Amino acid sequence: MTQNIYDQEDFFAGYRRLPRSVDGLEGAAEWPAIRALLPAMKGLRVLDLGCGFGWFARWARQEGAASVLAIDVSANMLKRAAEMTKDSAITYASGDMETLDVPAASFDLVYSSLAFHYIANLKHTFAVIHRALVPGAPFVFSVEHPLYTAPSTPGFVTTADGRRVWPLDRYLDESDRKTDWLAKGVIKRHRTVGGYVSLLLGTGFTLTHLEEWGPTAEQIAARPDWAVERDRPPFMLVAARSS
Amino acid sequence: MTQNIYDQEDFFAGYRRLPRSVDGLEGAAEWPAIRALLPAMKGLRVLDLGCGFGWFARWARQEGAASVLAIDVSANMLKRAAEMTKDSAITYASGDMETLDVPAASFDLVYSSLAFHYIANLKHTFAVIHRALVPGAPFVFSVEHPLYTAPSTPGFVTTADGRRVWPLDRYLDESDRKTDWLAKGVIKRHRTVGGYVSLLLGTGFTLTHLEEWGPTAEQIAARPDWAVERDRPPFMLVAARSS
Repeated sequence: MTQNIYDQEDFFAGYRRLPRSVDGLEGAAEWPAIRALLPAMKGLRVLDLGCGFGWFARWARQEGAASVLAIDVSANMLKRAAEMTKDSAITYASGDMETLDVPAASFDLVYSSLAFHYIANLKHTFAVIHRALVPGAPFVFSVEHPLYTAPSTPGFVTTADGRRVWPLDRYLDESDRKTDWLAKGVIKRHRTVGGYVSLLLGTGFTLTHLEEWGPTAEQIAARPDWAVERDRPPFMLVAARSS
Repeated sequence: MTQNIYDQEDFFAGYRRLPRSVDGLEGAAEWPAIRALLPAMKGLRVLDLGCGFGWFARWARQEGAASVLAIDVSANMLKRAAEMTKDSAITYASGDMETLDVPAASFDLVYSSLAFHYIANLKHTFAVIHRALVPGAPFVFSVEHPLYTAPSTPGFVTTADGRRVWPLDRYLDESDRKTDWLAKGVIKRHRTVGGYVSLLLGTGFTLTHLEEWGPTAEQIAARPDWAVERDRPPFMLVAARSS
């Protein structure tokens, strides 16, 4: 079963103070790039997996989505999401993606932001998503980039000759990684880029976009400390279509 | 224009002694994985880009391919390939992939091994390949993995706390890299995984396989020094279909 770190108090206390938690989508540097992958929302029935505080669900409705089923494993996140939402067309539901089941051919878009790298049995999740979508409908998601999750000790280091580098190892070893981000012992599931793509293609999706996200020149001008993220991309953005 | 390093004598003297040069396909550790991506060869008209010594062209004919057009930019390589070949259905031709032109809808398979990471204008090459294939036909290729080509200084290093790591930097910087492999000043074109995929999808290909190749457990048992290649994959194997 996937670790539910968001219901661990020290993690949640840190997470809820991140810019993306306080400011929503506009606080997420990769949001403009993800938004560019999304279809027009008008009339769509949307499934949002790992909905967190519900920022995307509310945005989708503002943009004209017909309905949003927003699922998360964390009671903390769902409680806060419900408090921030006054909209009967958004349904928040508690669910574990590892055992998820939703009605077949009932959604026009499946979206997930930074959730799948916590999921051990992603094959099951992708199969459920494929079945949930109407034929040809889009599936758009982001994950922590495999280069971010791979290392035994993720964090830039300085080499003997003074270079700042990302200490890559274990890239092809698709298995759990335990890191200390916001709290001790956060468990992620490392997959390779090829691993994600193989799962998608094997499920019957057609890949339509694969983007290794780094900050733009404009973003770096505003936040020079972000430049290092171009040495090792933090996120991967993927779009596919059910087929 | 792409650097023609294979016609530089010090590089060629080193290259011709590599196992893959002496032993052909069986001397290339990734060959079994590439072979698994290939269709049955019987009757196929094959285009081989960056054919080198012609090992693949001869193998394809042994497997029943109808014909092979094998192109390389290196006069050294083509001369040696012709010396090793007695087969009128294999045509060796001198050509630069940057300015390549071949007849439309005339090939049932396009294959390329470890050549594209030298090509600056790969968009042109992919467009020519797409046009050269009959509709729905496969395109199979390998390149040096983007993780291999990315770093300013590619080579494992030991961190202050004694870890052996691959010193990743500049991953998102898609541009030339000058390295000293077999000879000084070998120029490669670094692209990200997403960069290769975007070029393919943008050309009208459908991605059917993306593999970040590392040695198998059996290969590591035979060659324990290869284990490190699983920390940072050396090759990327790709299969697509024209559409």
